[in-house]
Amino acid sequence: MSIKIHTGQILHFLSAVTHEYFPSGALVTEDGKVVTCGDKESLLARYPQADITDHGERLIMPGMIDSHVHYPQLDVIASYGEQLLDWLNNYTFPAENAFKDPETGRSTAQFFLNELLKNGTTTAMVYGTVHPQSVDAFFEQSSALNTRMLCGKVMMDRNAPEYLCDTAESSQTDSQALIDRWHKKGRQLYVVTPRFAITSTPEQLTAAGQLLKDNPDVYLQTHLAENKAEIAFVEELFPERKGYLDVYAHYGLLGPRSTFGHCVHLDDQDLKIMSDTGSRIAFCPTSNLFLGSGLFRLHHQPSPVSVSIASDVGGGTSLSMLQTLNEAYKICQLNGTSLSPLEAFYRVTLGNAESLLLDDRIGNFTPGKEADFIVLNPAGTPLMERRSGKCTSLEELLFCLMIMGDDRAVAATYVMGNCLWNAMTDNEAKP
Amino acid sequence: MSIKIHTGQILHFLSAVTHEYFPSGALVTEDGKVVTCGDKESLLARYPQADITDHGERLIMPGMIDSHVHYPQLDVIASYGEQLLDWLNNYTFPAENAFKDPETGRSTAQFFLNELLKNGTTTAMVYGTVHPQSVDAFFEQSSALNTRMLCGKVMMDRNAPEYLCDTAESSQTDSQALIDRWHKKGRQLYVVTPRFAITSTPEQLTAAGQLLKDNPDVYLQTHLAENKAEIAFVEELFPERKGYLDVYAHYGLLGPRSTFGHCVHLDDQDLKIMSDTGSRIAFCPTSNLFLGSGLFRLHHQPSPVSVSIASDVGGGTSLSMLQTLNEAYKICQLNGTSLSPLEAFYRVTLGNAESLLLDDRIGNFTPGKEADFIVLNPAGTPLMERRSGKCTSLEELLFCLMIMGDDRAVAATYVMGNCLWNAMTDNEAKP
Repeated sequence: MSIKIHTGQILHFLSAVTHEYFPSGALVTEDGKVVTCGDKESLLARYPQADITDHGERLIMPGMIDSHVHYPQLDVIASYGEQLLDWLNNYTFPAENAFKDPETGRSTAQFFLNELLKNGTTTAMVYGTVHPQSVDAFFEQSSALNTRMLCGKVMMDRNAPEYLCDTAESSQTDSQALIDRWHKKGRQLYVVTPRFAITSTPEQLTAAGQLLKDNPDVYLQTHLAENKAEIAFVEELFPERKGYLDVYAHYGLLGPRSTFGHCVHLDDQDLKIMSDTGSRIAFCPTSNLFLGSGLFRLHHQPSPVSVSIASDVGGGTSLSMLQTLNEAYKICQLNGTSLSPLEAFYRVTLGNAESLLLDDRIGNFTPGKEADFIVLNPAGTPLMERRSGKCTSLEELLFCLMIMGDDRAVAATYVMGNCLWNAMTDNEAKP
Repeated sequence: MSIKIHTGQILHFLSAVTHEYFPSGALVTEDGKVVTCGDKESLLARYPQADITDHGERLIMPGMIDSHVHYPQLDVIASYGEQLLDWLNNYTFPAENAFKDPETGRSTAQFFLNELLKNGTTTAMVYGTVHPQSVDAFFEQSSALNTRMLCGKVMMDRNAPEYLCDTAESSQTDSQALIDRWHKKGRQLYVVTPRFAITSTPEQLTAAGQLLKDNPDVYLQTHLAENKAEIAFVEELFPERKGYLDVYAHYGLLGPRSTFGHCVHLDDQDLKIMSDTGSRIAFCPTSNLFLGSGLFRLHHQPSPVSVSIASDVGGGTSLSMLQTLNEAYKICQLNGTSLSPLEAFYRVTLGNAESLLLDDRIGNFTPGKEADFIVLNPAGTPLMERRSGKCTSLEELLFCLMIMGDDRAVAATYVMGNCLWNAMTDNEAKP
């Protein structure tokens, strides 16, 4: 019998406005899947022979999800003094060049995935570099851990250093080969990844659209309306289009499987098109602040658009989704709205899963879900211990975690029911 | 012979635009004061019998300074969902009530000072509560550690719960008694502390002005133009004045020993008055974001005003001055300016000392300065270790520290030459 029970405080979300919370709860898993969750006493009685792990008063939640992050940019995190376009040219492109060597990809992917797990992130939608081997390396490492990850090879055939450019044709061929090799292999999922309109010719954007048509269940990720100079450059490159969003629309890149990073500067008309096509936005708070891109209006929804939350490392400054929520809260405050703790934790679990169309497999603890979960420790530092000790409600505790928490608030991370990170004993994830 | 030498990378500032950096350096101290700093080889030769502590490749810098922080608000850090005035009423005032008990003051001050030292902050200008005993408790703990601290009893006689109100007369008497008891006793300095114009009657502001006249070398701290609702309320309370700043001007509270927290919404005319009177601003980045107060324009200086940088815990979200610089950088980016790493570290050391008129005693390593210094570890986390290992200049290393660093980047903190925090061995500061 392989039934396992994890006891502790249990929290998960059933929808944007519904959650289940068991202060003295239990999560039951079997063969890496969720059986159920609920009150501890009754579940211990129902499964008397289960293998029990007691997490005390700690908070067991679904693993967090990061919907936009660049693994090859780990080494340019915290690079000084630029806004988007100069930052790409001066820091990012040179760093990405190293990924032509598969060994760089392997070692970086291993380090990166370990950092994600330490931070309680069990699923991420990830950019590789232009090199197909960067994506092979990433999926190899992710497969070894059995983490559910989405990744794609950057398509980029202009306005970048020659050493980082592919062609419309090679990018299509290489992406298709990666799709054939990795999409739906185990838990891995492929994402067609034109970096953004600036670095793709019309021919390459056509190729990206063709990849989506040929492979209707892959994803698409790119960047959109992050920065004003970027927008001006796109309008210069595509004078025949009605604007930045219309470029992607024209090449058939919009839709429910497509996530557009940033969208800081979309107007209401753009948001209507995003809504009508079911396209998704990835809101990247630490990055938008770090690169001075602007204040994304999370709660401005003239038309309903699915918005996920993301770290965007290396433009973002932390892989921690807790720190990401900290700055998301601050951006909302500056916009005069409030990101409640329940909304925040819904967003980084079930909300992000919904946005990535993965809520049938991850994001909460309904029966049959893949058992990716984390154990949060609200006493991760002495100050957090002092502060969280004064919390008198779940909401206060969650808020303390999202404002004061970082990787030290993550006591353990489980993937498909297996512990891949334990802050008490581990220094690195176990492949 | 009590000469001590600390070897490592040495960095300190001689002015806003001049620094000294010794990649293989040494800091020489004697009896708690700086003798000199410079190249390691020559100083080791000059002081052959000194007691040597080798910090390897770590970075030795003057202790950081926090110019605006509320020690009694440690337990309301990360309280949800309000802007300034509601935040005060719902969280801060109830929490401050506990400080009528001197034991609360003692234990909180001890915890707070320990947290400051862990974060590399060796001097802070601190708010107590309305209770004189909260300031006695603070100075007692600070005296035991021999830290250079500034603190004052809050003066507050209206628009606050009755249990937290003093009177114009009692606040003057109590403040004067605290000045007599603590000002310049050892390293302790007194700060006249009317909370802000909203919570003081004209009589109490008159009393505050009188305290400054009677004690020309004490300091003043208060809040100014943090939030738009606050400004509107002040204008309603003082219709006879030309604006918020004019209230403080009228009661004689402006001047070089006066530091005004926030000043997010001062106009150019106000800044001219601040400049003409030599008054100081404390810029509180994490607080301004957390409470949605607005984006302070650090580099907008139509008239030169001395601006220090501060955590403003509990409105601020971290006691770490590194994290504070992280968000200061982001606010500058949103304003279209750039906070360079050298400017940033100048500001939190010598710059803040100058703003507090303490640069004759602390802030850098010129001979005779009090030997308050820290040892920064750019490899404080595995990701920082990886990232900082790729830095090729001092500026890059500093930037990595201010964007990625928190208390884990502080390896040790020395006060008057004595180690009060050592991350390798300590759990708390040694009194």
